[in-house]
Amino acid sequence: MSNGTGSGLRTLLDERRPGWSLPGVAYTDPALFGAEMRSVFGRGWLFVGPSSALPVGAVQSWTVGGESVLLSRTATGLHAHAGVCAHRGSRLVDDDGIAHRRRIVCPYHSWAYDLDGSLVGAPQMGPDFRPDRHGLVPLGVRDLAGLLFVSLDPGGLEPGAVTDEFEAMERDVTPHLAPYDLRSTRVAARNVYRVRANWKTILENNRECYHCRANHPEFCLTNFEYGTAGDPRSTPAYERAVREQRATWARQGLPTHTVDFPDGLPHRVARLPLKPGVITETLTGARCAPLLGRVGEQSGSVRVLCMPTMWVHVNCDYAMLTRVTPIDVATTDVEVTYLVAASGDYDVDAVTAVWSATSEQDWELSERNHLGQCSRAYRPGPLSPLTESSVGTFHDWYLSRLEAHAVA
Amino acid sequence: MSNGTGSGLRTLLDERRPGWSLPGVAYTDPALFGAEMRSVFGRGWLFVGPSSALPVGAVQSWTVGGESVLLSRTATGLHAHAGVCAHRGSRLVDDDGIAHRRRIVCPYHSWAYDLDGSLVGAPQMGPDFRPDRHGLVPLGVRDLAGLLFVSLDPGGLEPGAVTDEFEAMERDVTPHLAPYDLRSTRVAARNVYRVRANWKTILENNRECYHCRANHPEFCLTNFEYGTAGDPRSTPAYERAVREQRATWARQGLPTHTVDFPDGLPHRVARLPLKPGVITETLTGARCAPLLGRVGEQSGSVRVLCMPTMWVHVNCDYAMLTRVTPIDVATTDVEVTYLVAASGDYDVDAVTAVWSATSEQDWELSERNHLGQCSRAYRPGPLSPLTESSVGTFHDWYLSRLEAHAVA
Amino acid sequence: MSNGTGSGLRTLLDERRPGWSLPGVAYTDPALFGAEMRSVFGRGWLFVGPSSALPVGAVQSWTVGGESVLLSRTATGLHAHAGVCAHRGSRLVDDDGIAHRRRIVCPYHSWAYDLDGSLVGAPQMGPDFRPDRHGLVPLGVRDLAGLLFVSLDPGGLEPGAVTDEFEAMERDVTPHLAPYDLRSTRVAARNVYRVRANWKTILENNRECYHCRANHPEFCLTNFEYGTAGDPRSTPAYERAVREQRATWARQGLPTHTVDFPDGLPHRVARLPLKPGVITETLTGARCAPLLGRVGEQSGSVRVLCMPTMWVHVNCDYAMLTRVTPIDVATTDVEVTYLVAASGDYDVDAVTAVWSATSEQDWELSERNHLGQCSRAYRPGPLSPLTESSVGTFHDWYLSRLEAHAVA
Repeated sequence: MSNGTGSGLRTLLDERRPGWSLPGVAYTDPALFGAEMRSVFGRGWLFVGPSSALPVGAVQSWTVGGESVLLSRTATGLHAHAGVCAHRGSRLVDDDGIAHRRRIVCPYHSWAYDLDGSLVGAPQMGPDFRPDRHGLVPLGVRDLAGLLFVSLDPGGLEPGAVTDEFEAMERDVTPHLAPYDLRSTRVAARNVYRVRANWKTILENNRECYHCRANHPEFCLTNFEYGTAGDPRSTPAYERAVREQRATWARQGLPTHTVDFPDGLPHRVARLPLKPGVITETLTGARCAPLLGRVGEQSGSVRVLCMPTMWVHVNCDYAMLTRVTPIDVATTDVEVTYLVAASGDYDVDAVTAVWSATSEQDWELSERNHLGQCSRAYRPGPLSPLTESSVGTFHDWYLSRLEAHAVA
Repeated sequence: MSNGTGSGLRTLLDERRPGWSLPGVAYTDPALFGAEMRSVFGRGWLFVGPSSALPVGAVQSWTVGGESVLLSRTATGLHAHAGVCAHRGSRLVDDDGIAHRRRIVCPYHSWAYDLDGSLVGAPQMGPDFRPDRHGLVPLGVRDLAGLLFVSLDPGGLEPGAVTDEFEAMERDVTPHLAPYDLRSTRVAARNVYRVRANWKTILENNRECYHCRANHPEFCLTNFEYGTAGDPRSTPAYERAVREQRATWARQGLPTHTVDFPDGLPHRVARLPLKPGVITETLTGARCAPLLGRVGEQSGSVRVLCMPTMWVHVNCDYAMLTRVTPIDVATTDVEVTYLVAASGDYDVDAVTAVWSATSEQDWELSERNHLGQCSRAYRPGPLSPLTESSVGTFHDWYLSRLEAHAVA
Repeated sequence: MSNGTGSGLRTLLDERRPGWSLPGVAYTDPALFGAEMRSVFGRGWLFVGPSSALPVGAVQSWTVGGESVLLSRTATGLHAHAGVCAHRGSRLVDDDGIAHRRRIVCPYHSWAYDLDGSLVGAPQMGPDFRPDRHGLVPLGVRDLAGLLFVSLDPGGLEPGAVTDEFEAMERDVTPHLAPYDLRSTRVAARNVYRVRANWKTILENNRECYHCRANHPEFCLTNFEYGTAGDPRSTPAYERAVREQRATWARQGLPTHTVDFPDGLPHRVARLPLKPGVITETLTGARCAPLLGRVGEQSGSVRVLCMPTMWVHVNCDYAMLTRVTPIDVATTDVEVTYLVAASGDYDVDAVTAVWSATSEQDWELSERNHLGQCSRAYRPGPLSPLTESSVGTFHDWYLSRLEAHAVA
C-alpha cells in the first residue's frame, strides 16, 4: 500500500526490469493512477471517436478519468472544452454520447455557451461582470484522417512538444488511412464494456498475440498469428503471403511499410496480410459491407495504435475502432465502434462477429490477469523475447511519460 | 488527492476567495470530510426531527456520518445518547426511525438501559461490576418550538459556547414559530432521498434562488423569486406584496422582521410573502389542511434555516422540514417531513406536491454540480453579487467552524 | 482515520487494556488490516478445508485477503502454491472450489504446471529460457487428522517457528480427532456467507457464550451454556454431566482433557458434554448420520479452535467445520462445511439444522457489533470476568502476532 503520490512511482521506476512484466505496484496503487491521469492521459493525444459521427452543430461528450470533455463542430471547425461550467462548476452534459445542440446551456443557472466555448448568456451577474473572461476551458483537438483526438493538456493549444507529437502521428498514419476515406462513413454498431482491470493490463493484452492461439478462435480464422510489432516468428506460408500481398498493395499505390513507435512516439501503423483467400476480418472471410473509400478487396488489414487509448483495424469494408477509458486503478471502460461506408447495404452481424468475440475474450483475460497482479505472490515474470517485445515497448513509452511529467 | 488530514484543509483555507465558489478540494477530499464530521457536525446543534413525532416512551434513532444517535422522551423529559452499547460496542438499534420502547436492550448480551441512558441490567458481570459507571454516552438535546436538535459534542451538556448558540437560535426563532404550535402536529408524509453529492453542494443549492426560474416551475407558482438572504433584486409587484402583507401580519401580532445569521451564528429566520391570492405553497395556492396553531390564512410563509442540517418552510396549513445527513464526502441523505395540524382532514398529495417536485429537482442539480466540482478543470467561479451572496454567508460560517475546531 | 500503516497499530498497542474490548481502531483501520494480512494471516497456519474433499488429482482453490492459494494432491503427497502465473501474473484458477485437473494451465498464454508446481510447458520463450526457474511459488501445507492447513509464509517450508507451531497443534489435537477418522468422510453440505464485519468481531463472537441464551435457541437445545475456555460458571447439573460423561469417555479410551492455547499458541481442543439424553447437536438430540470412525454414541462433542480461521465441532455422527476468510477491514466470508461418514444414509436437513441457524444468528450479531465499533462514541467496555475471558485470550494472541511481525 502506497502512503503518498511519490512512493508507488518511485518503487515502479526503481524496480522495473526491462524484458520482464512490471512491478505489481504499477497495477494496484491508486496514487500512481492519479499520477497517470495527470502525466499520461493529461498530456498526450487521446482518441475520442470517428470524425464522421460529429457533424456541424453536434456536441460529443466523453468522460475520462472523471474529466468531462466536450467536442463540438461549428461552421468554423472543431472545438474541444472541459465540460465544466465556469460559474460554480456544474457538469454541463450528463451522459457520454453525441447530440445536436444550438448552445451548451448549463442546467443549473442557465449560463449559455456557444459551441466554440464563449459565454453568451449569464443572467443576474451585475454590471461589472465580463463574460469574455468566463468562457469554457479550451482543450486541444485534431482530426487525423477521420479519427478525432483531444489533448487535456492545458498547454495543448500552444506550439510545442505535444503538438509536434500529433504532427508526427499525422505524417505517419495519414498515408495508410487516407485511401479508406473514414470521414465518409457511418457507425454500424457500438459496444461499451466495463472491465475490472487496470488500463495498462488491457493495453498489454493488445500488444501481443502470444495469447491468440489459445483464446481467439474467431480472430485466428482470418489472421496470421504473427506480424505484431517486434514478433520475429514466421512460417514460409506467412512469408509468401506478405510477399505476394505487398506486391498487390504496391500496385494499387497503397503504402506497405510499417511505422513502429518512431523515436519513442506513441503511434504505430502497419498493413498486415490476411490469410490466403480472405478479404476481411469476418467469420467467413467474405466482405460484409461496401468497399471503403477508393480501396479494393486486396488491400490487407491496416492496424493503427495510438497509446494510451486507441487501436484500430481497418479492413476494405469496415473499420473497428477501440477506445480505452480508465475509470479507476482497477476499472476501465472500453468502447468498440464499427464504421462502414456512408451508403450501401451491410450485414451488421457479420461486421461485428469477429471483434465482439475477440474483444470479450480479451476483457476476460485482462480481468484474470488483474487479479493475479494484485497478489502478494505476484512477481514480475519474463516476457517472451519472440512474442512480447512490444509489451516492453509499451512499458518504455509509459515510463518515459511518467518520468518526464510526474517527477517534474 | 490529499495525503493527510491537514493538507486539504490548508489548501481550502489558503485558496478560498470571498465572492467565488470554493476550491474543489472542499467537495472531494475524504480527509476533509472526516474533519468536517468532527468540527462542523460534531460541535453544533443538529436538527433531528419534529418534537410531535416523539411521544413519551418513544425512541428515535438517527445515524449521521456513521454515528448512531438515540433520542428518547420519558416522563422527566427529553434525552439523547450515542446508540452504542457500553459493553462491547454493539449498535443498539438497527434502523433509523421512531418506536415505542420500554427499555433499550442490546441484542448481543442483553445489557438493558432505561430511556434515560442508565444501565439497569447486565448479567454475569461479577460482584465488582458497577452499573452506574457504564451508562450510555449522553449527548445534548433541545426542543425549539417543536423542532428537536441534538449536539454530538461531548461537552454539549456543559454551559459554554455551544449552549449559547442554541439559546441565541431559540431567542430569534421562537417568536416566528410559536404561533404555529408545531408541538401539536402530526406527520402527513415523509420522504427519504440518497443524493450523490457533497453535503455542502446541497446547502449551497438551498442558499440561492438564482436557479429557481429555470428549474422549479412548481415552486415559482406561489413564490416570488426574491427574498432569500442578501438578494437585493426586486420588482414593484414584489415591493407592494411585502408592504401589504407585512401590514397584515403585524395586525395579527406576527413578527415580520428577518434575522439573518446574526454575529456569524448558523441560523436565519424570515417571513416571506407569497404571490397575490396565494394562501400556501400548493400547486393551486389554496389551503390543503387545517390552519396550524393560532395563525390565519394571511400569514405568509416562514423560512427557518439552521446550518448545517436543516431548512424549514412553515405555511399556514403545513410545515415542510428538510434534514440533511452526510454519509461520505460524495453522498448525502436528505429526509423531507411534512407536518399538519394534529386533527382535521388534509389532502396528502396537495401537501407534498410542491416540495417533492422541488426537492427532487434540487437533488438532480446538486448531483450534476458535484460531478463538475470533482473535475481537474473545475476552478472557482464568480458568485452572482445579486443572487448568491448568501452562498458566501454559508461559506463564511462553514470555514469559521473548520478553523476554530479542526485546526485547534 | 489513520495516516499510515504504523499509526493505527501504535494506537492499538498503546491503548489496549486487558479485560476490556479493543480500541476501535482495531476494527476500522484499513492500513491495520493490511498489516494483519501480512503478520497474522501471512505467517501462521490457516485451515483450508477437509482432507477427504481433496483426492489425488484434485486442486482446491481458496482466496484469502486477495491471495489465491492452490492446494493439490498427487501420488507423492500434498502441495500448495500461490495461484499466480510465473509469466505475467494471471490468476490461474477463477473460482474457489475443488476440481480434478491433469495440469494447471494458465488460460492466458498456456503456461502449464504440474500439480507439484513445476513448469512443464511455456511456448515461445526462446532457447535461453530455463523452465526450472519459473515454477509456482510454493506454500506450506499440512494434514492434521483430516483437516488441511496452509501457511502463506514464504518461509513456511523451512524449519523454524511456524513449523513448530504446527507440530504443537498436531500433538495436542490429533488424540482427540483421530478416533473420528475424518479422512474417511464426505461433504454432506457446504454454506458460504458474506458478513459485513471485521474478522476479529466474528472470532470474538465465537470465543464466548455470553450471548448464547438470548440468541441461540437451537444451540441451547443440546448444549450447556458453559464450558468455553475460561468460563468458571457452572451448575450442579453441569458438574454431574461432566463427571458422568468423562467417565464414559475414559472407558472408551477417548481423551478427556482440555488443551487451552498452551504457551500462547493459537489452538484449543476440548471434549464437552452434551445435555443429558442428547447424542449429537441436532434439533432432537438424536443421531442423523452413521457413527464416525470408531467412536460410540456416548462420546460428547469435540471442539477444536485454531486461530485465526477455524473452529470445528465434531459430534459422533457429523463434524461442522467453520472457515473464516477476511476480505477487507469490514467484510469477511465464512464457509461452514458438514462432514459425515463416507458411507451410509444421513438426513442432510438434520445435519445442518442447528449450525445453519446458529451461524446465521452469529453473523447478524457480528454485523451489528461492527457498526457500533465504527462509531466515534465507541469506547472499550469491560469484558465479563465470568463469560468473556477467552475473548481476552484471543486478543493476547492476536496482539502478540502483530507485535512480533508487523513491528519487525
